[in-house]
Amino acid sequence: MRKMYRVRVQILPKEGVFDPQGQTVKGALEKLGFEKVKEVRLGKLIEIVLDAEDESQVKERTKAMCEKLLANPIIETYQLLDVEEVS
Amino acid sequence: MRKMYRVRVQILPKEGVFDPQGQTVKGALEKLGFEKVKEVRLGKLIEIVLDAEDESQVKERTKAMCEKLLANPIIETYQLLDVEEVS
Repeated sequence: MRKMYRVRVQILPKEGVFDPQGQTVKGALEKLGFEKVKEVRLGKLIEIVLDAEDESQVKERTKAMCEKLLANPIIETYQLLDVEEVS
Repeated sequence: MRKMYRVRVQILPKEGVFDPQGQTVKGALEKLGFEKVKEVRLGKLIEIVLDAEDESQVKERTKAMCEKLLANPIIETYQLLDVEEVS
């Protein structure tokens, strides 16, 4: 019996990796008057709906997707934020 | 006494809004053999380090940043995922 799941994955530049998009957002925030911002890092949030047999299969597949396509392991880290069953 | 906080914000295309990046990722996953993927939505994950007096000020400022710059309220929703104090 297969079920549908929704999983959320976060992908962020690793600490110390140059993040030009984050720098740009930081600069724009400062110009808007948010001068207390010390650091901005910009990453991706990917929401995937897939069908699978159970939650552990969802996690295993999502991990494989991150390693093969979604994240660049040299400069980014990925993290599964949550998995929920959807009807 | 001011403290440093790290806040994470998620920005996603609204349900029903056309998401060409998500479609592209879905197509690429299918080509890699992940044929059980039904939907992919691609958004942003923004991590901000800022100083503030307390957590409620952090939330208020982050909300203002989302409304003024980070999210496009016509096509995107934003959500504060968490706030943590950093040393």
